[in-house]
This record gives sequence, C-alpha cells and structure tokens, in this order.
Amino acid sequence: MDRAIDSQLEDLKKLTLEMGGLVEKALVMVSAGLLKKEPSHLQEVFKIEGLINDLQIKIDNECLQVLAKQGPVAKDLRLILSIIKINTDLERMGDQCVNISYISRELIERGFLNSLKDIEEMIEAVTKMVKASLDSFVKMDPNIARSVLDMDDAVDNYKKKINQHSIQMMKTDVNSLQDHLDFILIARNLERLGDHATNIAEDVIFAFTGKDIRHGSND
Amino acid sequence: MDRAIDSQLEDLKKLTLEMGGLVEKALVMVSAGLLKKEPSHLQEVFKIEGLINDLQIKIDNECLQVLAKQGPVAKDLRLILSIIKINTDLERMGDQCVNISYISRELIERGFLNSLKDIEEMIEAVTKMVKASLDSFVKMDPNIARSVLDMDDAVDNYKKKINQHSIQMMKTDVNSLQDHLDFILIARNLERLGDHATNIAEDVIFAFTGKDIRHGSND
Repeated sequence: MDRAIDSQLEDLKKLTLEMGGLVEKALVMVSAGLLKKEPSHLQEVFKIEGLINDLQIKIDNECLQVLAKQGPVAKDLRLILSIIKINTDLERMGDQCVNISYISRELIERGFLNSLKDIEEMIEAVTKMVKASLDSFVKMDPNIARSVLDMDDAVDNYKKKINQHSIQMMKTDVNSLQDHLDFILIARNLERLGDHATNIAEDVIFAFTGKDIRHGSND
Repeated sequence: MDRAIDSQLEDLKKLTLEMGGLVEKALVMVSAGLLKKEPSHLQEVFKIEGLINDLQIKIDNECLQVLAKQGPVAKDLRLILSIIKINTDLERMGDQCVNISYISRELIERGFLNSLKDIEEMIEAVTKMVKASLDSFVKMDPNIARSVLDMDDAVDNYKKKINQHSIQMMKTDVNSLQDHLDFILIARNLERLGDHATNIAEDVIFAFTGKDIRHGSND
C-alpha cells in the first residue's frame, strides 16, 4: 500500500535521526573537550545545542501537521507520539551535554590534575546506550531497545563509584574539593543522559509493539 | 457547539489536574519530611509517585484514544499534544520528589544539624512555580503561564546561594561534608522541578495561543 503518510513518516524518522546524530556529536565533543582539556570542543557543544533546539521545534511542528492532515491511527499514530516524546528526550540530552560542558570548562580553567578514568569509562557506557537507543529506533527493533534497558545498571554503577571516590577525596584533600564536586555533578548529568536513552528505548518498544513497559506496567 | 470531543477533552484535563495535584502533594510531603525531620512523610512520597506513574500511563492511553477516534485538529489537537507533554513533565517531577526524599532520608538518619532556611525558601519558591503552572493550565491563561517563566530566576538564585554556602561549609568543616553535598543535590533537584514547571507553562502557552516560545523562537 502506497500512502501519502508513509513518506511523511519517513521524513519524520529522518529528522529524528538527524537530531539523534547531533546529540551523539555533542557527546563526542563533550568527551574530547573534557578528556583532552580542550575548551574549543566544548564550544562546539553550545553550537550543536542550538541546532538541536531548532530541530526540536521543526519536528514538533511536522508531527502536528501530520496528525492534523492525516488523522493517523494504530501503528502510525503510535509512531508519531513516540517521535514527539523522543524529540523531547533528545532536546534534554542536548541540555545535559551543555551542563557538562559548562562544568568541564571551569574544571579546565582551574587546571585540575585528577584522573578522569572513571568519567571516561562512564561517557563510553552512556554513548553506547545512546547509540543503541537510536539504533533501535532506526531498525525499529524492540530487542535492541530492550538491550538499552539492560545497560542502565552499568551507568548507575559508574555514578556510584565516582560518587564514593570523589567524596573520599573531598574529605582528604580540601584543595581538590571543587574538582571532585564537579566530577559528582558530571556523573549525575551522564546518568541522566542514560535515563533519557532508556526513555527513548521505552518509546520504541511502545511504538512498535504497542506495549507500554514504563513503571513495570507490562512485560 | 456540543461535541463528543469536548467531554473527552474535559476528562483529559481533569486527569492532568489530578496528576498535578499529586505532584503538589508530593512536594508538600517532601517539605514536611525534610523540614520536620519526619521520615514517615517521605514514605508518603514513594506512595504518591506510584499513583503518579499509574496516572501517566492512563492519560497517555486516553490521549491516544481521542487522537485515534476523533482525529482532532487545530486548538483541540494542540491541547492534546500539550497534555501529553505536561504528563511527561509531571511524571518526572514525581521522580525529582522521590530523589529528594531518598537524600532527605539519609540526612535525617545521619542526624544533621545545619539550618535548612535556604532550602525551605527554595521549596516555597518552587512550589509557587508549580502551583502557577497548574493554575495556568486550569484557567487556560497564557498570562499566568508567562508569570511562571519569570519565577525561574528566583529559583536559580536559591540554587546558586545554596551551592556557594555549602561549598564554603564543606571546606571548613569536613564532618558536615556529606550533609552539604546533599544540600547541593537537593537544590539541583528543586531547580529541575522548577524547569519542569517552566516546560508546563510553555506548553500551556503553545496550547492556547499556538505560539511556540521555547528557545526564544517566538515572542
């Protein structure tokens, strides 16, 4: 069946992936900026966030148009509602990247010396989650989406590890207190990025299976 | 004009307000639990969050039904899309209340002694924002919604004040380090509650004027 709505839904999916690609790029720049202590990469994040914000409004508008003109039902309707929600999550992921960039910029300006090994690993774990959540959306694959939910524990464990270590360091070395507080805050922002990836995965499962698995309500 | 969709929209609005009322109740319990050092109030927050989660799924389902059966357009469509987004924000506000409750429970268990004056005032400021955002929705009043956006600065200022004071205290009194870290984290959760109230206000403005004011894109 060749329907006008099909090409509109394809366009919406492409825009959503474009936005997802921007979030991935922002994460790469956050990582490069912080780990290489290179503020110019962090500056890129602020630019990318502007593009993400513009796309959010564009996608929301197009969803509204398709809903108003096509009156979609069943699977098509679920897909559009999922795109609206994924759109919101992606925009907030951009905000989280910006938050981390602000904190990182101050850390770099202060010339911090501490190891970023755990943060580097946590960024990798979150990046994997984000990639998999977008992959589940591209391939419309609820199994990949389910794998995202399983990755959340690893991210939470990194947060706990960074928390504990940083608190210990704050107690023993008052001079590095602000740096370690910043690591705690970066870890919380990264954890939230992971939460948004989880939301996206849940939306994909809902869009393609009709099952709402939030809050353990199903499955 | 007496339309079937009108009563369905009324029902959706009532459910959204019911959910908003639960978020307000959770905030009252967070405040009472922390300020009176009374864990039983915090326990209530966990119960309320369960109700919020159930309502989120119910509202999303009903929105889907109305979209599928009525194929609404224009103002009706915008209202439903706003409700879907407000629903997401309210659910995450419940999560923030739960986060604060966990931190508060540990603070109380450790028998902290510090003044909560700034946190108390910040809770009041956030509660005002939340109330006004729900009020703008009930009364469909974009002017009240705009007033919510103006309240955000006061909340941000409390966060900064609590941040600065807590860092100072952490540096001078290592024994209260964990308590002051907790105050910083509570202030961040409160700030985020304010951000969600802002999102709700923006959705109300969009629903009732058709203007998308996010990211300074209009207005």
